[in-house]
Amino acid sequence: MSGNELEEIRRLVDRRLEAIRAKDVAGATSMMAADYMLFDVVEPLRSAGAGAASKRAEEWFSSFQGPIGYEMRDLQISAGDGVGFSHSLNHVSALTMDGRRLDMWWRATVGLRKIDGSWRITHEHNSVPFNVENGSASLDLKP
Amino acid sequence: MSGNELEEIRRLVDRRLEAIRAKDVAGATSMMAADYMLFDVVEPLRSAGAGAASKRAEEWFSSFQGPIGYEMRDLQISAGDGVGFSHSLNHVSALTMDGRRLDMWWRATVGLRKIDGSWRITHEHNSVPFNVENGSASLDLKP
Repeated sequence: MSGNELEEIRRLVDRRLEAIRAKDVAGATSMMAADYMLFDVVEPLRSAGAGAASKRAEEWFSSFQGPIGYEMRDLQISAGDGVGFSHSLNHVSALTMDGRRLDMWWRATVGLRKIDGSWRITHEHNSVPFNVENGSASLDLKP
Repeated sequence: MSGNELEEIRRLVDRRLEAIRAKDVAGATSMMAADYMLFDVVEPLRSAGAGAASKRAEEWFSSFQGPIGYEMRDLQISAGDGVGFSHSLNHVSALTMDGRRLDMWWRATVGLRKIDGSWRITHEHNSVPFNVENGSASLDLKP
Protein backbone atom coordinates (compact mmCIF):
# COMPACT_ATOMS: atom_id res chain seq x y z
CA MET A 1 0.00 0.00 0.00
CA SER A 2 1.30 3.38 -0.94
CA GLY A 3 0.80 6.40 1.32
CA ASN A 4 0.65 8.68 -1.70
CA GLU A 5 -2.11 6.65 -3.33
CA LEU A 6 -4.10 6.63 -0.10
CA GLU A 7 -3.67 10.39 0.21
CA GLU A 8 -4.78 10.95 -3.39
CA ILE A 9 -7.92 8.86 -2.92
CA ARG A 10 -8.69 10.59 0.37
CA ARG A 11 -8.52 13.95 -1.39
CA LEU A 12 -10.89 12.69 -4.10
CA VAL A 13 -13.32 11.49 -1.41
CA ASP A 14 -13.16 14.83 0.42
CA ARG A 15 -13.64 16.82 -2.80
CA ARG A 16 -16.67 14.72 -3.66
CA LEU A 17 -18.14 15.05 -0.15
CA GLU A 18 -18.03 18.85 -0.42
CA ALA A 19 -19.59 18.73 -3.90
CA ILE A 20 -22.47 16.54 -2.67
CA ARG A 21 -23.16 18.87 0.27
CA ALA A 22 -23.31 21.78 -2.18
CA LYS A 23 -25.45 19.80 -4.65
CA ASP A 24 -22.79 20.36 -7.34
CA VAL A 25 -23.53 17.61 -9.90
CA ALA A 26 -20.37 18.13 -11.97
CA GLY A 27 -18.15 18.24 -8.89
CA ALA A 28 -19.73 15.08 -7.48
CA THR A 29 -19.47 13.05 -10.69
CA SER A 30 -16.53 14.35 -12.76
CA MET A 31 -14.29 11.58 -11.35
CA MET A 32 -16.39 8.75 -12.76
CA ALA A 33 -14.73 6.46 -15.32
CA ALA A 34 -16.37 5.78 -18.69
CA ASP A 35 -17.03 2.17 -17.60
CA TYR A 36 -18.57 3.21 -14.25
CA MET A 37 -20.99 0.65 -12.82
CA LEU A 38 -23.48 1.77 -10.17
CA PHE A 39 -25.32 -0.51 -7.75
CA ASP A 40 -27.54 2.04 -6.02
CA VAL A 41 -29.68 2.11 -2.84
CA VAL A 42 -32.86 2.21 -4.93
CA GLU A 43 -33.89 0.40 -8.13
CA PRO A 44 -32.83 -0.51 -10.76
CA LEU A 45 -30.49 -3.46 -10.13
CA ARG A 46 -27.61 -1.59 -11.78
CA SER A 47 -26.84 1.41 -14.01
CA ALA A 48 -23.81 1.63 -16.28
CA GLY A 49 -21.76 4.54 -17.61
CA ALA A 50 -20.62 7.91 -16.31
CA GLY A 51 -23.93 9.39 -17.49
CA ALA A 52 -25.75 7.21 -14.97
CA ALA A 53 -23.85 8.93 -12.14
CA SER A 54 -24.79 12.43 -13.33
CA LYS A 55 -28.43 11.50 -13.87
CA ARG A 56 -28.70 9.90 -10.44
CA ALA A 57 -26.97 12.85 -8.72
CA GLU A 58 -29.29 15.33 -10.46
CA GLU A 59 -32.38 13.40 -9.38
CA TRP A 60 -31.13 12.98 -5.82
CA PHE A 61 -29.97 16.56 -5.30
CA SER A 62 -33.20 18.00 -6.75
CA SER A 63 -35.31 15.97 -4.29
CA PHE A 64 -34.03 18.14 -1.38
CA GLN A 65 -34.56 21.72 -0.26
CA GLY A 66 -31.32 23.60 0.52
CA PRO A 67 -27.95 21.97 1.15
CA ILE A 68 -27.52 18.29 2.03
CA GLY A 69 -26.24 17.25 5.44
CA TYR A 70 -23.87 14.46 4.45
CA GLU A 71 -21.24 12.61 6.45
CA MET A 72 -19.13 9.47 6.20
CA ARG A 73 -18.20 7.27 9.14
CA ASP A 74 -15.51 4.58 9.49
CA LEU A 75 -14.05 5.24 6.05
CA GLN A 76 -11.44 2.58 5.20
CA ILE A 77 -9.38 3.00 2.04
CA SER A 78 -7.19 0.27 0.51
CA ALA A 79 -4.92 1.41 -2.29
CA GLY A 80 -2.36 -0.41 -4.38
CA ASP A 81 -0.55 0.52 -7.54
CA GLY A 82 -3.40 1.72 -9.75
CA VAL A 83 -6.33 0.01 -8.01
CA GLY A 84 -8.11 0.97 -4.82
CA PHE A 85 -11.38 0.62 -2.97
CA SER A 86 -13.06 2.09 0.07
CA HIS A 87 -15.96 1.30 2.34
CA SER A 88 -17.81 3.49 4.80
CA LEU A 89 -21.16 4.14 6.42
CA ASN A 90 -22.72 7.25 4.94
CA HIS A 91 -25.42 9.42 6.45
CA VAL A 92 -27.76 11.94 4.90
CA SER A 93 -29.87 14.44 6.80
CA ALA A 94 -31.86 16.73 4.52
CA LEU A 95 -35.29 18.24 3.99
CA THR A 96 -37.16 16.77 1.02
CA MET A 97 -39.12 18.92 -1.42
CA ASP A 98 -42.37 17.75 0.21
CA GLY A 99 -41.12 18.81 3.64
CA ARG A 100 -40.05 15.49 5.20
CA ARG A 101 -36.77 15.16 7.04
CA LEU A 102 -34.71 12.35 5.47
CA ASP A 103 -32.32 10.93 8.07
CA MET A 104 -30.74 7.71 6.82
CA TRP A 105 -27.58 5.64 7.10
CA TRP A 106 -26.42 3.37 4.28
CA ARG A 107 -23.40 1.25 3.35
CA ALA A 108 -21.08 2.63 0.67
CA THR A 109 -18.35 0.82 -1.26
CA VAL A 110 -16.32 2.59 -3.96
CA GLY A 111 -13.89 0.99 -6.44
CA LEU A 112 -11.23 3.08 -8.19
CA ARG A 113 -8.64 2.71 -10.92
CA LYS A 114 -5.88 5.11 -11.89
CA ILE A 115 -6.48 6.01 -15.53
CA ASP A 116 -4.01 8.28 -17.40
CA GLY A 117 -2.51 9.32 -14.07
CA SER A 118 -5.76 10.24 -12.29
CA TRP A 119 -7.90 8.20 -9.90
CA ARG A 120 -11.32 7.47 -11.35
CA ILE A 121 -14.32 5.83 -9.71
CA THR A 122 -15.20 2.76 -11.79
CA HIS A 123 -17.68 1.22 -9.38
CA GLU A 124 -19.99 2.27 -6.61
CA HIS A 125 -22.23 0.13 -4.43
CA ASN A 126 -24.70 1.86 -2.08
CA SER A 127 -27.33 -0.05 -0.14
CA VAL A 128 -29.37 -0.64 2.95
CA PRO A 129 -30.02 -4.21 4.10
CA PHE A 130 -33.55 -5.57 4.38
CA ASN A 131 -35.52 -7.12 7.20
CA VAL A 132 -35.99 -10.79 6.44
CA GLU A 133 -39.18 -10.98 8.55
CA ASN A 134 -41.21 -8.47 6.56
CA GLY A 135 -39.18 -7.88 3.36
CA SER A 136 -38.92 -4.13 3.90
CA ALA A 137 -35.77 -2.09 3.37
CA SER A 138 -34.14 -1.15 6.69
CA LEU A 139 -34.08 2.64 6.43
CA ASP A 140 -33.71 3.51 10.10
CA LEU A 141 -30.63 1.54 11.19
CA LYS A 142 -27.89 3.43 13.01
CA PRO A 143 -24.23 2.48 13.43
CA MET B 1 -3.13 -4.12 -13.97
CA SER B 2 -1.32 -7.39 -13.70
CA GLY B 3 -2.52 -10.48 -15.54
CA ASN B 4 -1.14 -12.73 -12.82
CA GLU B 5 -3.01 -10.88 -10.09
CA LEU B 6 -6.23 -11.07 -12.09
CA GLU B 7 -5.71 -14.79 -12.62
CA GLU B 8 -5.04 -15.38 -8.91
CA ILE B 9 -8.21 -13.53 -7.91
CA ARG B 10 -10.23 -15.36 -10.54
CA ARG B 11 -9.06 -18.69 -9.10
CA LEU B 12 -10.05 -17.55 -5.59
CA VAL B 13 -13.51 -16.58 -6.89
CA ASP B 14 -13.93 -19.95 -8.66
CA ARG B 15 -12.79 -21.89 -5.59
CA ARG B 16 -15.25 -20.00 -3.43
CA LEU B 17 -18.10 -20.51 -5.92
CA GLU B 18 -17.61 -24.27 -5.80
CA ALA B 19 -17.46 -24.23 -1.99
CA ILE B 20 -20.73 -22.27 -1.77
CA ARG B 21 -22.49 -24.69 -4.12
CA ALA B 22 -21.31 -27.56 -1.91
CA LYS B 23 -22.26 -25.70 1.29
CA ASP B 24 -18.66 -26.01 2.49
CA VAL B 25 -18.37 -23.29 5.17
CA ALA B 26 -14.59 -23.53 5.60
CA GLY B 27 -13.99 -23.54 1.84
CA ALA B 28 -16.24 -20.53 1.35
CA THR B 29 -14.75 -18.42 4.13
CA SER B 30 -11.10 -19.46 4.65
CA MET B 31 -9.94 -16.56 2.44
CA MET B 32 -11.39 -13.87 4.68
CA ALA B 33 -8.94 -11.44 6.29
CA ALA B 34 -8.94 -10.81 10.03
CA ASP B 35 -10.27 -7.28 9.42
CA TYR B 36 -13.06 -8.49 7.10
CA MET B 37 -16.05 -6.14 6.93
CA LEU B 38 -19.38 -7.51 5.67
CA PHE B 39 -22.28 -5.40 4.36
CA ASP B 40 -24.84 -8.14 3.75
CA VAL B 41 -28.15 -8.41 1.87
CA VAL B 42 -30.06 -8.73 5.15
CA GLU B 43 -29.68 -6.95 8.49
CA PRO B 44 -27.61 -5.91 10.40
CA LEU B 45 -26.04 -2.80 8.85
CA ARG B 46 -22.59 -4.42 9.03
CA SER B 47 -20.68 -7.30 10.60
CA ALA B 48 -16.96 -7.26 11.28
CA GLY B 49 -14.31 -9.98 11.52
CA ALA B 50 -13.62 -13.29 9.78
CA GLY B 51 -15.94 -15.00 12.28
CA ALA B 52 -18.85 -13.00 10.86
CA ALA B 53 -18.30 -14.62 7.47
CA SER B 54 -18.36 -18.16 8.88
CA LYS B 55 -21.41 -17.47 11.02
CA ARG B 56 -23.31 -15.96 8.09
CA ALA B 57 -22.32 -18.82 5.73
CA GLU B 58 -23.43 -21.42 8.29
CA GLU B 59 -26.81 -19.74 8.72
CA TRP B 60 -27.31 -19.28 4.99
CA PHE B 61 -26.24 -22.79 3.97
CA SER B 62 -28.37 -24.43 6.66
CA SER B 63 -31.49 -22.62 5.43
CA PHE B 64 -31.48 -24.75 2.25
CA GLN B 65 -32.21 -28.38 1.41
CA GLY B 66 -29.54 -30.00 -0.76
CA PRO B 67 -26.91 -28.15 -2.82
CA ILE B 68 -27.22 -24.47 -3.73
CA GLY B 69 -27.69 -23.40 -7.34
CA TYR B 70 -25.33 -20.43 -7.46
CA GLU B 71 -24.01 -18.43 -10.39
CA MET B 72 -22.24 -15.13 -11.06
CA ARG B 73 -22.89 -12.92 -14.06
CA ASP B 74 -20.83 -10.05 -15.54
CA LEU B 75 -17.95 -10.54 -13.12
CA GLN B 76 -15.45 -7.68 -13.48
CA ILE B 77 -12.17 -7.88 -11.58
CA SER B 78 -9.73 -4.99 -11.14
CA ALA B 79 -6.36 -5.91 -9.67
CA GLY B 80 -3.30 -3.83 -8.91
CA ASP B 81 -0.21 -4.54 -6.89
CA GLY B 82 -1.65 -5.94 -3.68
CA VAL B 83 -5.18 -4.51 -3.89
CA GLY B 84 -8.13 -5.64 -5.99
CA PHE B 85 -11.89 -5.57 -6.16
CA SER B 86 -14.64 -7.22 -8.16
CA HIS B 87 -18.29 -6.69 -8.89
CA SER B 88 -20.88 -9.05 -10.29
CA LEU B 89 -24.53 -9.98 -10.26
CA ASN B 90 -25.05 -13.16 -8.29
CA HIS B 91 -27.96 -15.56 -8.46
CA VAL B 92 -29.19 -18.21 -6.07
CA SER B 93 -31.72 -20.90 -6.86
CA ALA B 94 -32.32 -23.28 -3.99
CA LEU B 95 -35.02 -25.02 -1.99
CA THR B 96 -35.48 -23.62 1.51
CA MET B 97 -35.97 -25.88 4.53
CA ASP B 98 -39.67 -24.95 4.56
CA GLY B 99 -40.02 -25.98 0.92
CA ARG B 100 -40.02 -22.64 -0.90
CA ARG B 101 -37.92 -22.10 -4.02
CA LEU B 102 -35.61 -19.13 -3.49
CA ASP B 103 -34.74 -17.59 -6.85
CA MET B 104 -33.01 -14.25 -6.39
CA TRP B 105 -30.46 -11.95 -8.01
CA TRP B 106 -28.35 -9.55 -5.98
CA ARG B 107 -25.41 -7.21 -6.47
CA ALA B 108 -22.02 -8.36 -5.12
CA THR B 109 -18.86 -6.34 -4.58
CA VAL B 110 -15.71 -7.90 -3.11
CA GLY B 111 -12.55 -6.09 -1.94
CA LEU B 112 -9.25 -7.92 -1.61
CA ARG B 113 -5.74 -7.31 -0.31
CA LYS B 114 -2.68 -9.47 -0.72
CA ILE B 115 -1.51 -10.36 2.79
CA ASP B 116 1.68 -12.40 3.32
CA GLY B 117 1.63 -13.39 -0.36
CA SER B 118 -2.01 -14.57 -0.51
CA TRP B 119 -5.12 -12.76 -1.64
CA ARG B 120 -7.60 -12.25 1.19
CA ILE B 121 -11.11 -10.87 1.08
CA THR B 122 -11.19 -7.84 3.39
CA HIS B 123 -14.59 -6.53 2.38
CA GLU B 124 -17.81 -7.80 0.91
CA HIS B 125 -20.95 -5.89 0.00
CA ASN B 126 -24.07 -7.82 -1.04
CA SER B 127 -27.43 -6.14 -1.57
CA VAL B 128 -30.67 -5.76 -3.41
CA PRO B 129 -32.03 -2.26 -4.08
CA PHE B 130 -35.39 -1.18 -2.72
CA ASN B 131 -38.53 0.17 -4.34
CA VAL B 132 -38.87 3.81 -3.38
CA GLU B 133 -42.67 3.73 -3.85
CA ASN B 134 -43.40 1.11 -1.19
CA GLY B 135 -40.13 0.74 0.73
CA SER B 136 -39.85 -2.97 0.09
CA ALA B 137 -36.65 -4.80 -0.88
CA SER B 138 -36.63 -5.67 -4.61
CA LEU B 139 -36.18 -9.44 -4.46
CA ASP B 140 -37.44 -10.33 -7.94
CA LEU B 141 -35.31 -8.16 -10.24
CA LYS B 142 -33.52 -9.88 -13.11
CA PRO B 143 -30.50 -8.65 -15.10
